[in-house]
Amino acid sequence: MDKKRVTKELLDSIKGYQDRVPYQSPFALQPADRKVDAENLKDQVRRSKIVESLEEAIKLSGLKDGMTISFHHHFRNGDKVLPMVMEIIARMGFKDLRVAASSLTSAHECLVDHIKNGVVNRIESSGLRGKLAQAISEGLLEYPAVIRSHGGRARAIVEGDVKIDVAFLGASSSDCMGNSNGVVGKSICGSLGYAKVDAAHAEKVIMITDTLVDYPNYPISIPQTDVDYVVVVDEIGDSSGIMSGATRFTKNPKELLIAKKVLEAMLASGLFVDGFSMQTGSGGASLAVTRFIREELIKRNIKCSYALGGITKAFVDLLEEGLVGKLFDTQSFDLSAAESVGRNEMHQEISADFYANPFNCSPAVDKLDFVVLSALEIDKDFNVNVISGSDGVIRAASGGHSDTAAAAKMSIIVAPLIRGRLSTIIDKVTTVVTPGSTVDVVVTDMGITVNPARPDLKEKFLAAGLDLVEMEDLVAAAKFIVGEPKPIEFTDEVVAVVEYRDGSIIDVIKKVK
Amino acid sequence: MDKKRVTKELLDSIKGYQDRVPYQSPFALQPADRKVDAENLKDQVRRSKIVESLEEAIKLSGLKDGMTISFHHHFRNGDKVLPMVMEIIARMGFKDLRVAASSLTSAHECLVDHIKNGVVNRIESSGLRGKLAQAISEGLLEYPAVIRSHGGRARAIVEGDVKIDVAFLGASSSDCMGNSNGVVGKSICGSLGYAKVDAAHAEKVIMITDTLVDYPNYPISIPQTDVDYVVVVDEIGDSSGIMSGATRFTKNPKELLIAKKVLEAMLASGLFVDGFSMQTGSGGASLAVTRFIREELIKRNIKCSYALGGITKAFVDLLEEGLVGKLFDTQSFDLSAAESVGRNEMHQEISADFYANPFNCSPAVDKLDFVVLSALEIDKDFNVNVISGSDGVIRAASGGHSDTAAAAKMSIIVAPLIRGRLSTIIDKVTTVVTPGSTVDVVVTDMGITVNPARPDLKEKFLAAGLDLVEMEDLVAAAKFIVGEPKPIEFTDEVVAVVEYRDGSIIDVIKKVK
Repeated sequence: MDKKRVTKELLDSIKGYQDRVPYQSPFALQPADRKVDAENLKDQVRRSKIVESLEEAIKLSGLKDGMTISFHHHFRNGDKVLPMVMEIIARMGFKDLRVAASSLTSAHECLVDHIKNGVVNRIESSGLRGKLAQAISEGLLEYPAVIRSHGGRARAIVEGDVKIDVAFLGASSSDCMGNSNGVVGKSICGSLGYAKVDAAHAEKVIMITDTLVDYPNYPISIPQTDVDYVVVVDEIGDSSGIMSGATRFTKNPKELLIAKKVLEAMLASGLFVDGFSMQTGSGGASLAVTRFIREELIKRNIKCSYALGGITKAFVDLLEEGLVGKLFDTQSFDLSAAESVGRNEMHQEISADFYANPFNCSPAVDKLDFVVLSALEIDKDFNVNVISGSDGVIRAASGGHSDTAAAAKMSIIVAPLIRGRLSTIIDKVTTVVTPGSTVDVVVTDMGITVNPARPDLKEKFLAAGLDLVEMEDLVAAAKFIVGEPKPIEFTDEVVAVVEYRDGSIIDVIKKVK
Repeated sequence: MDKKRVTKELLDSIKGYQDRVPYQSPFALQPADRKVDAENLKDQVRRSKIVESLEEAIKLSGLKDGMTISFHHHFRNGDKVLPMVMEIIARMGFKDLRVAASSLTSAHECLVDHIKNGVVNRIESSGLRGKLAQAISEGLLEYPAVIRSHGGRARAIVEGDVKIDVAFLGASSSDCMGNSNGVVGKSICGSLGYAKVDAAHAEKVIMITDTLVDYPNYPISIPQTDVDYVVVVDEIGDSSGIMSGATRFTKNPKELLIAKKVLEAMLASGLFVDGFSMQTGSGGASLAVTRFIREELIKRNIKCSYALGGITKAFVDLLEEGLVGKLFDTQSFDLSAAESVGRNEMHQEISADFYANPFNCSPAVDKLDFVVLSALEIDKDFNVNVISGSDGVIRAASGGHSDTAAAAKMSIIVAPLIRGRLSTIIDKVTTVVTPGSTVDVVVTDMGITVNPARPDLKEKFLAAGLDLVEMEDLVAAAKFIVGEPKPIEFTDEVVAVVEYRDGSIIDVIKKVK
């Protein structure tokens, strides 16, 4: 076209247009990594993002020493993406990388070697388990590991505290442009809730799939607009590895007793009315709570409006029975859930941002009535530890614990008073993940106790005839049974930092002596 | 909890933690506009965003003189949100606002008075019509109006060129947290594709609905994470006003002839194979093209993989017949489309960003094989004008014209050689919206002409036995029939600036003498 229509001189004469540029050609202005020549325009539009190998994609991504790479843990123990990618990255000779994973599991022990070899020097994750956790607790890392809740990680990424340079995202299916999901293909994992956040904010996104489908893929969990490269590999994960916690109804009498007491507390709270909402975990007691809730819903002829969080078969069954209106799924906790989220439109995949980022306009946790959460340790100030063992070694995950506890109208922490020869209810938790001020009710096999900050709940529980115990009495009973635990001896070296969901530092984990 | 667990001194001793803050209390760190006291935490979590009136929401939003407000045009001529909001804003005494709308229609003539009264001094839109367009063409605005394509607007918002301070978004249903859509409620408009971009990027989002539903709403087109306030009003729009262009099969012989030639060109291109993709508009000729395509699909026993853009009943029918795999809908062009996008999961709502933003990793337009677009004027360099009339006055909209033309493998511009006593094919278009270098084929009732930049297409067309004409011959024929048009006389005053999708300035519109 006649380029003289708009000149710099003309723009200079228009109010507010002094620093603007005249049109040159259709693809003259573009993000720096993409250029289209003025000749044969239509042949150059990028209509496929498939690259031949992970190595090629890594080269194209511009990865450099010291950068931040990210992974999701939707395959949990079945993940094959992180080991595969890290092996190639190590072979390519990269150093000093930060691994910002949504969580790390037993599938990720290879990181111990990559840290030893200098490929990785920083780890950020919701959880750490097994050999990796042990090694980090022993001071393997140059920088302390960073533990974040799911909502806290979403916040950190969205707000730019964590800038991901290259996200390596496994998806069970993708088309040639990167439209992808976790519900179609040979290796399904269900929701891609954590991966969605990485995809939306990473500088470069490499989509890794073992099932390439025709364009356009359906459903679209991660859109092509977020994806830079697509790599097809043999296998991204083992679907059977996604299983988390119990799936069968517990016969453990302690768990059944706790579940029964949880239900009593929920019923007494005044919140168990038509349209209430809830999140429960995947442990034995939680699963039993879900079963008891089902019976109450039927008896009272009411419905739960939505259930949130990691979704299990128990909730899929409630949805299919019409007892729960909708499921909001950040993470599918078993194959039934993974299949359901791809099949039932009322079982909705949500991002970790939608789930729990405290800095967006409002995450889904803000509408929770009940959350039932487990604990490794609870102290007399109601603080909860879900990250480190009573030996001081990192062993579990922050998850959505502090996010849901802070927002739910009634947060319920469940735990047996004693596990083996260790007390769960103690004077001071080894590590604080969830602050006591957000914990409303603690339910143990030895009784229910209410946070003194919630006299309203205590009053309702007493009016309903519930037996309540005082926190001090639980601590004393535990001491009576198993004795005073020997204090853990730590060095001064900080091996991990626990971030609260708002980015402040709520605790640190020190190296064990 | 014991606040002494993490002190400033401790953080100072940890590598990289010198500028971090210790945890204080659960809601101590939050975006500035939200504060929760340390007492009675759980009572203060925001579980409803409903405010009593638009005026209250505007006050809460922090709107100030000189700021930018945005609207979507999914209700087109039936929109009641913009007039309602602008009346209140004017009454509240705001001045010098910038209105950044996805487009403006005959429903928005009230803006003439608001500009005259100083409430609004800048207008940005895809289109301008009727009295508002006339007044702006006559020099009503202090600053030139900005015309952007749909993809260009998404790019400008995402990249921060247009910073929206407060978005006023009408949705046919919303819950109390702002989860909203355009497919449930008494005033449906279908896709909220433009609004999604505003919601994701505006500083404050006020969701305006006339149908409040129980939490959580389904489907969620705009999520609660993006919404600050919810206001319930009597009526947000008239669904019957969304109709755009013809819905019945044309009997106009010129249009039928053009449609037939378009089909011939598509068939001859070699691109009309199983799995091809397309976008066609809503005019008479486009609708006829769609009908002809349907017959060819059946005859050849092939399928179109997806259709894109503004979606009409014609495409809904193709989807339901199984002749098109998926519909990607930025904007529902009639009630049938609006209903279908709420009902059929293969009829997917997409954002304007996904549709056409040239700066994301890749918009949907990049996978188009064919796009059929109309024109007000086409010149011998294949430049297309879809914004101003042959009298030089603004009268229409940029839309997705330049976006799809740039990306589609074969862009086809359709127009009658002559409209009334005016030629469509001329020496130099009044305003360039779509540069000729992106236009591949022009189809008129007087013949098909191919851009010399596409010798490959010309060769295929000739091999298929198509009669082709030269652009010069079309221009000459038009001149022969209606004579040489008298040049429009413009002053030097720029009344509107036409931005190309990449943000460069492709043309300006001057005040008519």
